[in-house]
Amino acid sequence: MWTDSKPDMREAGRKEARDAGPAVKRLMALTGDMPHLDKFMQDKLFALQLVVWALRGVTRVILANNPLSGSLMLAAIYWASPWQGLLGTLGLLTSTLVAVILGQDSGEVWGGLHGFNGMLVSLLMGVFNSAGDWYWWLLLPVCLASATSVFFFSGLSPVLDRWDLPVAVFPFNMVIIIYFLCTGPDNPYFPHHLAVPPSWVPPNVTALSATQVLQGIPLGVGQIFACSSLGPSLLILAGLCLYSPLQAFHALIGSAIGTLAGLSMAVRHECLYTGLSGFNGALGCMAVGGLFFMFNWKTHLLAIATAFLSAYVDIALSNLLGAMGLPACSWGATLTVTLLMLLRGDVATYRIPLGQVRAPEQNLRSRSRWQAGSAVEQESTDV
Amino acid sequence: MWTDSKPDMREAGRKEARDAGPAVKRLMALTGDMPHLDKFMQDKLFALQLVVWALRGVTRVILANNPLSGSLMLAAIYWASPWQGLLGTLGLLTSTLVAVILGQDSGEVWGGLHGFNGMLVSLLMGVFNSAGDWYWWLLLPVCLASATSVFFFSGLSPVLDRWDLPVAVFPFNMVIIIYFLCTGPDNPYFPHHLAVPPSWVPPNVTALSATQVLQGIPLGVGQIFACSSLGPSLLILAGLCLYSPLQAFHALIGSAIGTLAGLSMAVRHECLYTGLSGFNGALGCMAVGGLFFMFNWKTHLLAIATAFLSAYVDIALSNLLGAMGLPACSWGATLTVTLLMLLRGDVATYRIPLGQVRAPEQNLRSRSRWQAGSAVEQESTDV
Amino acid sequence: MWTDSKPDMREAGRKEARDAGPAVKRLMALTGDMPHLDKFMQDKLFALQLVVWALRGVTRVILANNPLSGSLMLAAIYWASPWQGLLGTLGLLTSTLVAVILGQDSGEVWGGLHGFNGMLVSLLMGVFNSAGDWYWWLLLPVCLASATSVFFFSGLSPVLDRWDLPVAVFPFNMVIIIYFLCTGPDNPYFPHHLAVPPSWVPPNVTALSATQVLQGIPLGVGQIFACSSLGPSLLILAGLCLYSPLQAFHALIGSAIGTLAGLSMAVRHECLYTGLSGFNGALGCMAVGGLFFMFNWKTHLLAIATAFLSAYVDIALSNLLGAMGLPACSWGATLTVTLLMLLRGDVATYRIPLGQVRAPEQNLRSRSRWQAGSAVEQESTDV
Repeated sequence: MWTDSKPDMREAGRKEARDAGPAVKRLMALTGDMPHLDKFMQDKLFALQLVVWALRGVTRVILANNPLSGSLMLAAIYWASPWQGLLGTLGLLTSTLVAVILGQDSGEVWGGLHGFNGMLVSLLMGVFNSAGDWYWWLLLPVCLASATSVFFFSGLSPVLDRWDLPVAVFPFNMVIIIYFLCTGPDNPYFPHHLAVPPSWVPPNVTALSATQVLQGIPLGVGQIFACSSLGPSLLILAGLCLYSPLQAFHALIGSAIGTLAGLSMAVRHECLYTGLSGFNGALGCMAVGGLFFMFNWKTHLLAIATAFLSAYVDIALSNLLGAMGLPACSWGATLTVTLLMLLRGDVATYRIPLGQVRAPEQNLRSRSRWQAGSAVEQESTDV
Repeated sequence: MWTDSKPDMREAGRKEARDAGPAVKRLMALTGDMPHLDKFMQDKLFALQLVVWALRGVTRVILANNPLSGSLMLAAIYWASPWQGLLGTLGLLTSTLVAVILGQDSGEVWGGLHGFNGMLVSLLMGVFNSAGDWYWWLLLPVCLASATSVFFFSGLSPVLDRWDLPVAVFPFNMVIIIYFLCTGPDNPYFPHHLAVPPSWVPPNVTALSATQVLQGIPLGVGQIFACSSLGPSLLILAGLCLYSPLQAFHALIGSAIGTLAGLSMAVRHECLYTGLSGFNGALGCMAVGGLFFMFNWKTHLLAIATAFLSAYVDIALSNLLGAMGLPACSWGATLTVTLLMLLRGDVATYRIPLGQVRAPEQNLRSRSRWQAGSAVEQESTDV
Repeated sequence: MWTDSKPDMREAGRKEARDAGPAVKRLMALTGDMPHLDKFMQDKLFALQLVVWALRGVTRVILANNPLSGSLMLAAIYWASPWQGLLGTLGLLTSTLVAVILGQDSGEVWGGLHGFNGMLVSLLMGVFNSAGDWYWWLLLPVCLASATSVFFFSGLSPVLDRWDLPVAVFPFNMVIIIYFLCTGPDNPYFPHHLAVPPSWVPPNVTALSATQVLQGIPLGVGQIFACSSLGPSLLILAGLCLYSPLQAFHALIGSAIGTLAGLSMAVRHECLYTGLSGFNGALGCMAVGGLFFMFNWKTHLLAIATAFLSAYVDIALSNLLGAMGLPACSWGATLTVTLLMLLRGDVATYRIPLGQVRAPEQNLRSRSRWQAGSAVEQESTDV
């Protein structure tokens, strides 16, 4: 996620698939990063290629990279709200096309890296819009903001590259804040709801419902796509499971930890019930647990710590930005994961270089092959 | 602007002037960066040299570098308000002298790079001062703030240099925010007006006057010097035209685009009438249209996009900082241009390395000569 | 301070001590960085080693590095308030142990670099806690926040290392802001006082008392440890004097300058009386006057300028953050010193590379020896 699979890795992927039995091979081909698909699509129609790039982009939102998962997740968004689905699709296509026009790196475009920020901006603009669904004027800022996110992605990458950090959702978080600040609280053309700080407690508080808090955990996974219905959230989780079961597992753990952090800070019940407390924890937990770091019990503990830190930073930033009526989006997880990836010491040895990041399960396999390879090499050097 | 013309470029400038006819030569000598003047001034009195450095510094504010344009612009500021002229001159000289004392790079000092931030800080302190003109106590913070801007310029440059970015007006924007925050809303010694967010609409709104909006476009160019009278703004524009007609053209386009962006966000009428909506667009449009990027139709379109983005970011930041009573100054344009200069992909090929930036017209000529040169070189290599 | 003394420097320290007479030698051995102690402790019990690391960590707060000074300063904190002492000790040990567990660089751990941020976070959490002393629940966030500061220290260091900058108290400043924002103004479990902006003037102002303002100067040194009693502040100053008299002298000058800056901006009397106006000035003055720059009259003037700038930036940030009820902690000094260390030009020649920074007096001696050495080397090259 947030990286492009290198050609040599695709080669490795195909070799590996060849080694396995034919049934497993076919199943394997639909999970993980699906590197073979790029080769297959190379001489197809541009429109078809664009669909694959866009579907990869959909999964990038949740740190995955698989067009099949992408179609499941897009279906979930249309299920939750067709208007949100339309906005998301428009943002996705606009930003991908703008990246093509601006001549961005084709590997990045193919991998869907220029689509997901535009999609997220569009979804958030739809969620906070107070003029109601099917307010067609909104399509204008949606297109402009999606296009702007490409500029931010391209401009931030040389800075973050110095430390081998992913651009991630920094562009989305910046562009959406600019949009909300620009339109202000009572814009006549593009009115929007104001965000409420999580620590603001309404006067008449009812008792906390344990069922609703538990329901907030899968909703936290859906909230990564700004979706707060249970059915679509479970479909998104299923799509993630297709990409990598390990990552889906970490998403649920992270969301539960985020909810726990929210309880410990006594946030508004609404935040817990809708999954808003959980989604930053989920993002943080997924990123560290197996994706950017090799999965083992040490990084698993680190992923839990990251989930807690992401959730607390999210509460802090939500209180800060909420004082201006702004949402904290995924700043908490993005900043925390960036910090974790900069860590020195023992944990840094488990960090996977950005160019070699794939699905957690494949990271594990390529690491063992690579270690075996280096052992063989060492032997041959010894001789 | 924001760069120093290297000796070899001066050589090229002189050669070029020699090739042209004597009348054109004399005219040419007064436009663009005037690199021959540095040689001429080398053995003159320190006071005379200081005047040239300071006048170059005046034009750096508007991304130009020509002492003659500088004297026109300084005259415009004195015309608009002698008190503002005095403050600007004091800030200009203080920061240039502090840079000399601190032993900053002489090429930077000669090019006026240590004067313009001090001048801008002083002008803004004068504009927001609520104790009236000729309030002599203000000279003390003006001197201190101008001196501080040199520290910021020198300290920021190693960080920005890593990505070949100009320090630009970052020091001005930082120092002025520190000054306003320091003195607070009701300081007994240095009282100042509070900035009003552009989205705040007064209760009794009158109809929008098209004439005043149109007048706001040239005023947007004047607002770069914090000047809001029409006559002086036109004189500033004339000075800019002497440096580079192309840049003056982009300044007007950018200001018009900024006004358009302001209209689309329904900002206060006052912002449109006084040119406050336009000046960030003008700065963004100038920087990308021919100065830091080679001028062609692609970068012209990019300059238009930059002007829109600068203007929207300015509205966003003005709403954010305005909630604390702070002005957004030129943060919008500065951040946007910095982002644009970091862009990857096709547009990056038109980016001119910072050490070779000159007036837009000269950039065009040196590029074609350089390309011809490299073609010749290639031929000779082929042989 | 904020750096680890390299083995070759320890060698030099021992040689130097050997050259001096036995009485001076014994005295010398207790001042400065005490590099010989590390060798002596190497084969001792882990608990004993931990005590030395922790005591070094205590002095890192005030830019020193001497376990004896550390025990004096810790005694001062316990004297001022045993509860604060307990919190500080807990934070110190937690963050040092977490750094050991996370496998951070052992040189950094030995030098106390992973202790001081945790200690400062804990002290500030105690000072702002509004549930009264001996509120045992506070120990939970104290431990978590101290542990988090290690993540911030380790994550920020690769970024700041690019420009040879110390991580300093950035982690403390970030973690404490996150904690205060997280708990919000009326948290039911961890309530805390809100910070008041220094420019907010209460309705009934009494005349300024010169004695109390003067008393604020030594209190400014104590405020570096969030301590506002006179006796303990003097003991802290004595501990600093043991490490380096020059640094203690600069601390007092800096605190006086900070108080002067506060007077010039007409801050609340309380800020002046309690030393809150002075401590950022003290930190800035110490860092530039002899520690990170070679001590001479030029850097002495620069240290005075830094003290003023630190104090003004602190007032500015206190007004900004105070509007949200947040304290500005030592952001002012930290940002200013970071800026100063990035300076180019003549002053940069006096900058000491981070790996070679020791007590100001030792910096002077090692510089002269190094210069003598290079002179000898040059001679031998000439021959």
